[in-house]
Amino acid sequence: MENGPIELQGIKYPALTHALKVKSHFLSKKPDSATTSAFLIAGESLKLYPYSDQCPPLRQNRYFHYLSGVDQIGGCFILFELSSNKLTLFLPEIDYDDIMWSGMPLSIEEASSKYDVAEVLYADSLASKLESLHESGIEIYTTDTNEYKDKSFASLVIAGNEDFFYALDESRTIKDNYEIALMKHAAKITDNCHLAVMSALPIEKNEGHIHAEFLYHSIRQGSKFLSYDPICCSGPNCGTLHYVKNDDTTQGKESVLIDAGSEWACYTSDVTRCFPINGEWTKEHLEIYTSVLEMQSTTMAGIKDGCSWEDLHMLAHKVLVKKFIEFGIFKNGTEDEIYKSGVSIHFFPHGLGHLLGMDTHDVGGYPNYSDKNPMLRYLRIRRPLKAGMVVTNEPGIYFSPFLLENGLKNPDHAKYIDMDVVNKYMYIGGVRIEDDVLVAQDGYEVFTKITSDPKEISDIVKKGLAKGKEAFHVVI
Amino acid sequence: MENGPIELQGIKYPALTHALKVKSHFLSKKPDSATTSAFLIAGESLKLYPYSDQCPPLRQNRYFHYLSGVDQIGGCFILFELSSNKLTLFLPEIDYDDIMWSGMPLSIEEASSKYDVAEVLYADSLASKLESLHESGIEIYTTDTNEYKDKSFASLVIAGNEDFFYALDESRTIKDNYEIALMKHAAKITDNCHLAVMSALPIEKNEGHIHAEFLYHSIRQGSKFLSYDPICCSGPNCGTLHYVKNDDTTQGKESVLIDAGSEWACYTSDVTRCFPINGEWTKEHLEIYTSVLEMQSTTMAGIKDGCSWEDLHMLAHKVLVKKFIEFGIFKNGTEDEIYKSGVSIHFFPHGLGHLLGMDTHDVGGYPNYSDKNPMLRYLRIRRPLKAGMVVTNEPGIYFSPFLLENGLKNPDHAKYIDMDVVNKYMYIGGVRIEDDVLVAQDGYEVFTKITSDPKEISDIVKKGLAKGKEAFHVVI
Repeated sequence: MENGPIELQGIKYPALTHALKVKSHFLSKKPDSATTSAFLIAGESLKLYPYSDQCPPLRQNRYFHYLSGVDQIGGCFILFELSSNKLTLFLPEIDYDDIMWSGMPLSIEEASSKYDVAEVLYADSLASKLESLHESGIEIYTTDTNEYKDKSFASLVIAGNEDFFYALDESRTIKDNYEIALMKHAAKITDNCHLAVMSALPIEKNEGHIHAEFLYHSIRQGSKFLSYDPICCSGPNCGTLHYVKNDDTTQGKESVLIDAGSEWACYTSDVTRCFPINGEWTKEHLEIYTSVLEMQSTTMAGIKDGCSWEDLHMLAHKVLVKKFIEFGIFKNGTEDEIYKSGVSIHFFPHGLGHLLGMDTHDVGGYPNYSDKNPMLRYLRIRRPLKAGMVVTNEPGIYFSPFLLENGLKNPDHAKYIDMDVVNKYMYIGGVRIEDDVLVAQDGYEVFTKITSDPKEISDIVKKGLAKGKEAFHVVI
Repeated sequence: MENGPIELQGIKYPALTHALKVKSHFLSKKPDSATTSAFLIAGESLKLYPYSDQCPPLRQNRYFHYLSGVDQIGGCFILFELSSNKLTLFLPEIDYDDIMWSGMPLSIEEASSKYDVAEVLYADSLASKLESLHESGIEIYTTDTNEYKDKSFASLVIAGNEDFFYALDESRTIKDNYEIALMKHAAKITDNCHLAVMSALPIEKNEGHIHAEFLYHSIRQGSKFLSYDPICCSGPNCGTLHYVKNDDTTQGKESVLIDAGSEWACYTSDVTRCFPINGEWTKEHLEIYTSVLEMQSTTMAGIKDGCSWEDLHMLAHKVLVKKFIEFGIFKNGTEDEIYKSGVSIHFFPHGLGHLLGMDTHDVGGYPNYSDKNPMLRYLRIRRPLKAGMVVTNEPGIYFSPFLLENGLKNPDHAKYIDMDVVNKYMYIGGVRIEDDVLVAQDGYEVFTKITSDPKEISDIVKKGLAKGKEAFHVVI
């Protein structure tokens, strides 16, 4: 399959650099620990389904991966000794009975040349290593002991220390060039998948066909794992934010929303596009689409080091209010009155975006899901942006019966909503436009290149439709 | 998407019939328990990845599903009271904060009409129900308390009772007509996927393309989950039995092996096909292919109620030995001597097949993985077959450096192997042919219809090749 970004060929994942970054943040909180601490993180292991000999795919522990670069090997450990800046990778012992089933595992020599670590050992030597560190007075910090709680050395480690998590999360928040290259590669694969989905309308009669199309092109490009369960919806289903049923007919509907991203080497992409099923935007669909696009472009312009994500989130609400007054959806108030009432949360209930990295909703955003202010409750970044962060910019507008029912219960909100007008938009379900954005010192860089221009999207869909079913893959 | 087998439209999954079957097996072991017992099984719940707000797809607990018919709803319980033959389904309470994200959950009324249960309640009433049963002296049997070990009612149940497991497993072992219809539907989807893979050689330059092709057609037909991680390999990789890397080029190789099956409504299919990459079988590939086909047809003829699976497994080895003497791979002994030496396990190391049902390796086969006889160690059915069982018949022949290295270490085996001849076959890697078979009173029925005839397979591959790349899906 694909080998990943050309510029990274032959270059190791910078595990040691990451460990040194974590050390630096850790020492900022615990300045006296430089010679008395070590970090230990267990990788994920394969876990069987209940009463089954099968397991779900291995999804590597992200903290472990950050310090090791190891992906699809279960049962590893990574150890970092702060005094010597030494990274040691522990591989699981070879299970000879398993070789005929799974093939030869990576050898010590292969692992040594593949990963950015000083030494590779088998995991059966870990206990004595940790005992020796412990006896020397070294404090061994770890995230948790879930993978080894029954092992003797579980009692030698300090799990869940908040300074250690702070150091890990702050380090992961700012992406280095290697990580940025991986994320751009994931975004490129995702761009191609979205283009394929937009182009294949003649063979997409059901949301499941859209799901299949996206995943097909992702796997073909070497990305077997999507960043998250894809959201493939049409018509009113687009109003359910995390719709994952993906099994309804698209026939007789006007709108499609697809929120899906491919992973590359444990790094995610997260992209949403919307398009009209027959290539022609309806009046209402285009109005909502261009409104969301304006919410995105207006907020995008504000992205740079130091900017307030909360302010940009609120700016998106302001754009929504302005447009809804134009359309007659909001009434009986000035732009400012309506904005301040908070009524717009019934149409844009989620946050403007989140940090993106090894996790789709990446660490370090410090959201406050119990915020008393409902406009900020679901905002997943509650800190100024910094250069090197990668965020999604993903405003949306939804017409959801459930959200509206809630909104209409509050008379201070209901008075601003003209339901006769709203009802004309219900068939759309919702529109979201989502791109992946690197924060820079004085601006931003968008990773995702698949067009969001409504005219270009319409042209892509119509070009596919003109080809007709016979131009596509054999469909059984 | 697809609605499943037409003959099941409007008919509920027979949860009550299953509960009564389990009861009957249970009472055969505990005859005095009819009025003093109840069964409780928790369904699976969604579990987050470590330090993530995402989860792997829900794979429903098979025992729970057997007694409820419920698939994609996490956090349910099913209760069966033996005295009244009453099945009660407990749904998780509605999480109102989740509706905007996930949509409306199934209501009590919808669940009542969808499932074959006497009553549907919310799970918050379960504790008092179990307390009341417990106070009345009812013994509540369960598989385990993993899903609710922190709940008060975990102390009221009897977990892991072997008679209860016996009753569950024996019931599941014999499939009823409803289950057979689901399995035939899964097999039909799988047939189509294999046909698509065989037909699409112009766009399959890598094992990953084969994986993508299979999964694409599975999802398009409404089967989002494969029964197991698909094995897509080419050339020497075909010698690794559970190869799942699926990322090597197919170019410059001759053979493809694909072992993949779609699931339908929690019921699996499990099918392996092999084909030549350029449509023309090489001499050696065809020799091995027809040998495996003969191993399958010879053993298939013996399948009926009461037959010994162990005998059929050994019969497959006999066929292999006969063919290998013909090819000159085995030498220096009579057919009988070579067969009795056990040398054939280095070429056919796994079992002839396994029970198939909700699990790919279904319950009730009672394998003995520590059997001292290496020829039977990996055989997953160690009991006579019964009418109503579904099994895979999947002989294989492999040329694996690792297996051969082991074989050559044993002089009593090595003397029979002509490595000069073996070396001519190594490029094939391996051949396996696998079909899903219902055991009948006087014979068998094969669910899987995709051809295994070498001439027909060659024709399918060549027909696809003749179409050329431009006849296929847009490939990015």
